[in-house]
Amino acid sequence: MPKLKGKMLIAQGGGPTVVINQSLVGAILEARKYDEIDAVYGSRHGVSGILKEDFVDLSNVDEKHLESVASTPGSSLGTTRDKPDQEYCEKMFEVMQKHNIRYFFYIGGNDSADTCRIVNEEAKKVGYELRVIHIPKTIDNDLPGTDHCPGFGSAARYVALAFRGVNFDNAALPGVYIGVVMGRHAGFLTAASVLAKTKESDGPHLIYTPEKNFDIHHFTHAVKEIYEKYGRCIVAVSEGIHDKDGAPIATKLMKQIEHDAHGNVQLSGNGALADLLSERVKDHTGISRVRGDTFGYLQRSFVGCVSSIDSNEAREVGHHAVEFAMSGDVDGSVAIKRKSEYSVGYELIDLSIVAAQTKIMPEDFFESDTMVSEKFIQYIKPLVGDLDETIHLDAPKV
Amino acid sequence: MPKLKGKMLIAQGGGPTVVINQSLVGAILEARKYDEIDAVYGSRHGVSGILKEDFVDLSNVDEKHLESVASTPGSSLGTTRDKPDQEYCEKMFEVMQKHNIRYFFYIGGNDSADTCRIVNEEAKKVGYELRVIHIPKTIDNDLPGTDHCPGFGSAARYVALAFRGVNFDNAALPGVYIGVVMGRHAGFLTAASVLAKTKESDGPHLIYTPEKNFDIHHFTHAVKEIYEKYGRCIVAVSEGIHDKDGAPIATKLMKQIEHDAHGNVQLSGNGALADLLSERVKDHTGISRVRGDTFGYLQRSFVGCVSSIDSNEAREVGHHAVEFAMSGDVDGSVAIKRKSEYSVGYELIDLSIVAAQTKIMPEDFFESDTMVSEKFIQYIKPLVGDLDETIHLDAPKV
Repeated sequence: MPKLKGKMLIAQGGGPTVVINQSLVGAILEARKYDEIDAVYGSRHGVSGILKEDFVDLSNVDEKHLESVASTPGSSLGTTRDKPDQEYCEKMFEVMQKHNIRYFFYIGGNDSADTCRIVNEEAKKVGYELRVIHIPKTIDNDLPGTDHCPGFGSAARYVALAFRGVNFDNAALPGVYIGVVMGRHAGFLTAASVLAKTKESDGPHLIYTPEKNFDIHHFTHAVKEIYEKYGRCIVAVSEGIHDKDGAPIATKLMKQIEHDAHGNVQLSGNGALADLLSERVKDHTGISRVRGDTFGYLQRSFVGCVSSIDSNEAREVGHHAVEFAMSGDVDGSVAIKRKSEYSVGYELIDLSIVAAQTKIMPEDFFESDTMVSEKFIQYIKPLVGDLDETIHLDAPKV
Repeated sequence: MPKLKGKMLIAQGGGPTVVINQSLVGAILEARKYDEIDAVYGSRHGVSGILKEDFVDLSNVDEKHLESVASTPGSSLGTTRDKPDQEYCEKMFEVMQKHNIRYFFYIGGNDSADTCRIVNEEAKKVGYELRVIHIPKTIDNDLPGTDHCPGFGSAARYVALAFRGVNFDNAALPGVYIGVVMGRHAGFLTAASVLAKTKESDGPHLIYTPEKNFDIHHFTHAVKEIYEKYGRCIVAVSEGIHDKDGAPIATKLMKQIEHDAHGNVQLSGNGALADLLSERVKDHTGISRVRGDTFGYLQRSFVGCVSSIDSNEAREVGHHAVEFAMSGDVDGSVAIKRKSEYSVGYELIDLSIVAAQTKIMPEDFFESDTMVSEKFIQYIKPLVGDLDETIHLDAPKV
């Protein structure tokens, strides 16, 4: 088979993570090994940069500089929420053909995978040979076909460390604490809070995820019950919790519902849900000290608590994406396969498995509607990495 | 002078920090060196535990266990917002006399220092020989008489790392980002966000502290101006910002104003201020992507980004407090004196200097109403410690 000679284009889509640039740099450095890649272009702000021909040339960027970029949070090429339709795609092809781009890598979540799928189909329709590889990234961990997603481990580490600290803060000054965690459809990130627990009486005592219907009366009742038992209560709540009809609890208090280009309701960037839930608890339980925090954008961008396994795997999916692309006439999404405790392999899976699909927490990751199972804890522990020891003072009463 | 023989009592007051247990353990371990200290008691939940005789015996707690406690966030003895009046104090004395407590150490902020002052005066009135030492602690850094406060450096590190990450997230997906930081009267912690900046165009672009009157029209205008210049804008805001009449901006949106026992308005534990400011920016500038985060309790409790200088100094103030108390018939508050770049000394200052007093940022820490000066940066840098390198991708345009 003759080699496919041409340029490589790489872009980043969707929400940034703290390790997304590891994937970028992994792909760039691997690409340098292949003669058939004439040049490595980066598109600014995802697919939107393709339409504008807003490219940077990454072919000769110093490796040391790239390593510093790799350990910087955020999407260094810039990102976008644009989701191309057919017309958008046609314009992208004009540009790709003009520049003889033959390898296209898109680092992102399920929406970005769907973009890859559309681009790939359009390329086939017009007979333009283009290898399209989706490189997975999401803090939500909601991509099907992969054991877990790069970006998740570090965000989960932030959430676990946050609840670890909050648990001791709340033990010192007891009350109810509600922490709202990112996650529209999948509760993986909220569930990561469980790693804060070192004993039964530690928080989080209740974990609410979008996998289960949320009932405000059950909620206030459960909080009161825990408060009566331990004198305090810590709750981890997904921003995407909804009632049995699927209506997001968050929207009930929002004055204004914003929609982004994908039709998703904006659940991040305001503290409405935490405030609503806190007020409910105060009103319905008579507990006076009730505090709510919305973890917000720090979950996906906080510098200094990166999971090293997550960082390594983010690098590897970028690296393997290029390896797969050079192996033959293939398209797909890079997936992580978990082997024994703890190692992983990488494989290329069909784009349709990931594109616009959402994976939620399986039933056996739950012990009850408000607590995760030991199986989930075993699943998530290696992804988050070791946490420093924290301990409650143990001294005899006088 | 005959040695004052009796028990030592130690307690923690006010908001917890991530290094407050270093001070506790520093004091306990130092106390073990002195024969005149019969036993070391810890009061649960600050002064409130004294009234209830809710003591633990710290005299023989294993040193290894104490070291684990030292590196755990939160106040391990529990804390309180109680502020004793004369009657409260009289009851405290009854208990102290009953247990022959002769050394009282209270780790806390300016309210806790005021408690020390009252306790000390009451002891003198009734001729009860009691050495009272205040051990400083506050993330707000608002205690007079000391160069800076243990607890501040680590909270400032959290804030700096948070804005460092947010700056790159916002560069990837541009818009306006407003981060609300703790701080009622002093802006030190909010101002720490400046360490996120590595170049002029980096955020935070605007810093609003309680030292300056806040005007909502100036604010939206300033945000718009920055947005037009850089295509994005990052704002750090103290929860305690107020208008020229002293009215907190936060209260304007709060449905319910809570007061704690000290008469302070509750500014933490809800996202009202960030949401109010975000909505204002949207309404008055036409900028669509505006996000607000309230950093909340993680600032004072997050595990895993402790400043090592802060941690060491927190240990030292505890250690020195006991040393001072054993040196003679003294009372006071432990203060940190900054020497050359960078070392410190410790001294005992009069309780009245710290008690119920607030230090705010001096004028020369400001470059303008919305930006801090180089002098402030030099002041804060060693307290926060080194931050890992982060870098913007530098690649030639195609």
